[in-house]
Amino acid sequence: MEINFTTVIDLSGTFAFAISGIRLASGKQIDWFGAYIIGLVTAIGGGTTRDLLLDVTPFWMEDGKYFLTTGVALLATLLFKDKLFRLGNTLFLFDSIGLGLFTIVGISKSLEAGLPFWVCIAMGTITGTVGGVVRDVLLNEVPLLFRKDIYALACVAGGVVYFMCRHFSLPAGLTELVAASTVILIRIIALKFHIHLPILSSITTDTGDNENKS
Amino acid sequence: MEINFTTVIDLSGTFAFAISGIRLASGKQIDWFGAYIIGLVTAIGGGTTRDLLLDVTPFWMEDGKYFLTTGVALLATLLFKDKLFRLGNTLFLFDSIGLGLFTIVGISKSLEAGLPFWVCIAMGTITGTVGGVVRDVLLNEVPLLFRKDIYALACVAGGVVYFMCRHFSLPAGLTELVAASTVILIRIIALKFHIHLPILSSITTDTGDNENKS
Amino acid sequence: MEINFTTVIDLSGTFAFAISGIRLASGKQIDWFGAYIIGLVTAIGGGTTRDLLLDVTPFWMEDGKYFLTTGVALLATLLFKDKLFRLGNTLFLFDSIGLGLFTIVGISKSLEAGLPFWVCIAMGTITGTVGGVVRDVLLNEVPLLFRKDIYALACVAGGVVYFMCRHFSLPAGLTELVAASTVILIRIIALKFHIHLPILSSITTDTGDNENKS
Repeated sequence: MEINFTTVIDLSGTFAFAISGIRLASGKQIDWFGAYIIGLVTAIGGGTTRDLLLDVTPFWMEDGKYFLTTGVALLATLLFKDKLFRLGNTLFLFDSIGLGLFTIVGISKSLEAGLPFWVCIAMGTITGTVGGVVRDVLLNEVPLLFRKDIYALACVAGGVVYFMCRHFSLPAGLTELVAASTVILIRIIALKFHIHLPILSSITTDTGDNENKS
Repeated sequence: MEINFTTVIDLSGTFAFAISGIRLASGKQIDWFGAYIIGLVTAIGGGTTRDLLLDVTPFWMEDGKYFLTTGVALLATLLFKDKLFRLGNTLFLFDSIGLGLFTIVGISKSLEAGLPFWVCIAMGTITGTVGGVVRDVLLNEVPLLFRKDIYALACVAGGVVYFMCRHFSLPAGLTELVAASTVILIRIIALKFHIHLPILSSITTDTGDNENKS
Repeated sequence: MEINFTTVIDLSGTFAFAISGIRLASGKQIDWFGAYIIGLVTAIGGGTTRDLLLDVTPFWMEDGKYFLTTGVALLATLLFKDKLFRLGNTLFLFDSIGLGLFTIVGISKSLEAGLPFWVCIAMGTITGTVGGVVRDVLLNEVPLLFRKDIYALACVAGGVVYFMCRHFSLPAGLTELVAASTVILIRIIALKFHIHLPILSSITTDTGDNENKS
């Protein structure tokens, strides 16, 4: 395994995503191995969905580091849980960096597959968000994705910036850096200033035709 | 984009499925973009599952109209929500037409892939129903599919009619029309006359061996 | 269809998995066809996920016996429900045998695809467990997998034994027998003696930064 900047960021993101799964599993009568699986699914669920849609080999089959990193996340939780879970802001930063990186990885892989820009942006968003959705579904909650500060929309915005940079022929490395930073900054700013999209309210009158709603 | 009868029906079905997702999301503390995603997943979830199982490129990657139609559905909801949600019967008709069309599309695509008739019928049913199941799972409800008037069974019946028409060498267009109409009519008749399958009751005695039930 | 020992075991496992789905569906206002679908998904969900990840044709498309066996399971439930559900121990045995067999099938198929041993073990575990997870998610429960006696871990242990046997060049048939027996025995012993992994407890202090937990 070559150690470079991308690897460090990739593993930080995996670690943060795994911790977010393990953390949400704690206190729900889930055993250690169950927590490991939920952490793993949170970390690799998005990329796996992307790879299935792209019809390529799921990325984690070719490199054991994602399974190992999740193991380290579980071990860290067991040893330093109270301290670790108190690192809210640090974890949030990891999580945001992971989101930015995962989004860009999803876009790059989709571009290589020759897909149009809007499919690439969808794939980037899928890569960044599906793991957290599966985590919430497994733990029997309505996914946070749908109820919270800007999250999926940050991925979309990062994707749009990515293709604007490409349009103006910026170098690939710079494009990736700017796009990932966009995701991360939107996420941080939205959380800090409690910016969120309007909630979709329910209908004001009940017309009694609920039986039609499938 | 060529405008013809199939396209109109296809987009009506997509619109109705998207509205059903957005409608169920309303009043659940879900923001606009979350509602868009749930509408999209409801509309494209079935066809995507089918395409993954058939190992072909997911249909929505090759045509942006499904993403756009879902966007129109969200916009329509935001602008005319009370009116739109009151259109129960019209929406139900769209939804049923969509179900019929999606089922037939699923069968046709599976036939092209050289699959036996019963796999084709399963694929038609998957195409018609999985989107609604994913919608319900994401919104943390037991899928309506399992609890309501004839729904998946209408797809199966339409599939059986499809292969009976083929057996008697009816022209392809007529076969599709008759099969889709079967799905739609069964759905409408079942709703109008409250026809449903018997409920599977629980066991009458608790034998205390629940720990075995996985 | 050739009747041999593997077929008998395969169908017993399918039957037991289908019954476990139908059984959990009973008493939840689910109709007969809904119960059939839940039974089917429980029985074929794991193998289907494995085949999607391996990019091969889902196994049930090539042989109707899985759909038929689930139909028999539904019929048996409707006719003999009280008796059948009281067969706790027998069903549990079927279920454990099915788990062992499904795990080994998953490992073998992954080995044929040329995957490294740890991916094969993951695939065996996926084959054995995903059906039950999907069943629980559809019925809106936190998957039993995460909350109960040793289950997924038995698959992992069976996988490790499988590769130890291969390392010592045991014949393929013996390797499979020993590995499957390992899964089955661990499952039975864990249930009988209530052996389970420690639960992951929640954090002892609420630090108020829950908003970061995605």
